[in-house]
Amino acid sequence: MTLPERVQLYEVGPREGFQSEPVLDTNEKIEFVDALSRTGLRHIEVTSFVSPKWVPQMADAEALLAGIHREPGVIYRAAYLNVQGLERALNNNVTLDGSLVLSASDTFSKRNMNKSTVEMFSNLSEWIAAYKAANIRVKQMGFMASFGCNFEGYIPLPHLIRLMGDVIDLAADAGETIQKVKLADTMGWANPEQIKRTVQTIQDKWPQLDIHLHLHDTRGLGLANVYAALQEGLWEFDTAIGGLGGCPFAAVKGAPGNIATEDVAFLCEQMGIDTGLNLAALIDCANKAEQLVGRALPGHLAKGGLQEHIRPKTWKQVQG
Amino acid sequence: MTLPERVQLYEVGPREGFQSEPVLDTNEKIEFVDALSRTGLRHIEVTSFVSPKWVPQMADAEALLAGIHREPGVIYRAAYLNVQGLERALNNNVTLDGSLVLSASDTFSKRNMNKSTVEMFSNLSEWIAAYKAANIRVKQMGFMASFGCNFEGYIPLPHLIRLMGDVIDLAADAGETIQKVKLADTMGWANPEQIKRTVQTIQDKWPQLDIHLHLHDTRGLGLANVYAALQEGLWEFDTAIGGLGGCPFAAVKGAPGNIATEDVAFLCEQMGIDTGLNLAALIDCANKAEQLVGRALPGHLAKGGLQEHIRPKTWKQVQG
Repeated sequence: MTLPERVQLYEVGPREGFQSEPVLDTNEKIEFVDALSRTGLRHIEVTSFVSPKWVPQMADAEALLAGIHREPGVIYRAAYLNVQGLERALNNNVTLDGSLVLSASDTFSKRNMNKSTVEMFSNLSEWIAAYKAANIRVKQMGFMASFGCNFEGYIPLPHLIRLMGDVIDLAADAGETIQKVKLADTMGWANPEQIKRTVQTIQDKWPQLDIHLHLHDTRGLGLANVYAALQEGLWEFDTAIGGLGGCPFAAVKGAPGNIATEDVAFLCEQMGIDTGLNLAALIDCANKAEQLVGRALPGHLAKGGLQEHIRPKTWKQVQG
Repeated sequence: MTLPERVQLYEVGPREGFQSEPVLDTNEKIEFVDALSRTGLRHIEVTSFVSPKWVPQMADAEALLAGIHREPGVIYRAAYLNVQGLERALNNNVTLDGSLVLSASDTFSKRNMNKSTVEMFSNLSEWIAAYKAANIRVKQMGFMASFGCNFEGYIPLPHLIRLMGDVIDLAADAGETIQKVKLADTMGWANPEQIKRTVQTIQDKWPQLDIHLHLHDTRGLGLANVYAALQEGLWEFDTAIGGLGGCPFAAVKGAPGNIATEDVAFLCEQMGIDTGLNLAALIDCANKAEQLVGRALPGHLAKGGLQEHIRPKTWKQVQG
């Protein structure tokens, strides 16, 4: 059980966060993404190519991507839910993962995508064909509600493993190799022991497969889950600045959203894990995010404060 | 590395939480403590015997303790900072630990108690004498700012260990045996690896000593720290319902306070650790606490929701 030497945080705030807020001004979003680009983040999910009818917050996807200042070394990403969205993404200079996505919860799949998990699975061949047509290798798979679901309860691990195997096989039949799985705890169900058991089971079965986590802090276990994952050697996490994001199915509107970028970065840095991130710059962005959405966000570090005594020396440096 | 089978949470919200809020109505506090008494909590710190001149929020300590309905099996506690406070506690039917308390940070000691750590240490003989006069065995020691301090930075572990040894020796010279140490992360500095290193070092040196943690979530690492402590077998934690409490030295007024009772209980229960607590009743109390203080509190579970699918079956039960 050794912690990794470095982690890579994938910022999803501008996409997953702002999609559940009132429509924001495009120029303000451009400024915000540009500020994020100067924090040391290497991956920023900027927007989503979805129907402006259903998600007016993302209607400015093209304008936003055209307006940002692209910092060298930063990989700009966008989400998409169907082949039309993929086409738009291809036309707007974002990096694509070639990812095949399902929900581990059938009920969530129906509620969120209007399709059962089986129907979603049967669409994957179409996705593979679309990626091939665009000359993109299929390298990744993702599962929403990997750990639990407000409508179905805990997702049994054997069910997740079976789905993973099915997708790996389908990709292999098309001559593609899945190299990474992204597991999303969409509604905030995972606990640290469940994370460990899940990661260990996957690593035993597919030792070559990278595991990337997308965690939510809905019930407060987000950073404990990150710590459990770090103990298993995981090093790639989706996070959202300030703890932007949310869950439309939480008990209370404004329930905590994605795990906060600055809190996860602080956790890692204090334990001697390199994030490549400037914590003070992240706090500035978290404060900007609060101004943009006009309410307090759940991230902690901006409120607790990055004391001068923390800045020059992390605990790991003090301990040697 | 085995998790404990059960944990004991010591509720400190009515004391540590309400001392930093506007003065609340005594009857409302009585109702609130009575509600807490029906959640399964076995230890509730109700109030503090301090000067009403300095802490008007606690001026009703006697009335509050006289007014509550004492639930069988619940141990009611109170804080005190000097021998006069101890006298008042003795007269009001609260359970006392016979605890000797210092701050591991000299600067925090001076700012918070107007005395250096050395001066505080030299007062301990007076405390031992006062406890003896009251026929209370000295069994516990406590350290504020055990892990870090906004004014001094990280507390070197050898310094904490030295202070611990000094107190153990002083007590032994007076014929008393320290059985438990309570380590407080008063300003929210600890990280999980620091918790582990600290616990392991103490357990190596004093294998018989119980370690009780008092953690704050100032910078978001509270529950990750609890998980690290559970992995080392610790099972006693101070928590505050709703995440009441705060830190007068945080960057922002209203920064996250103590770790939230309901979130810690949820973490434990989902991993199969018995808390003896009724999560739904805790959420009711967290909601009551928000009404009392008139603002949103940082605890997560009340906002994320205790779904019906969580209630009958924890993840551990599903996994078997």
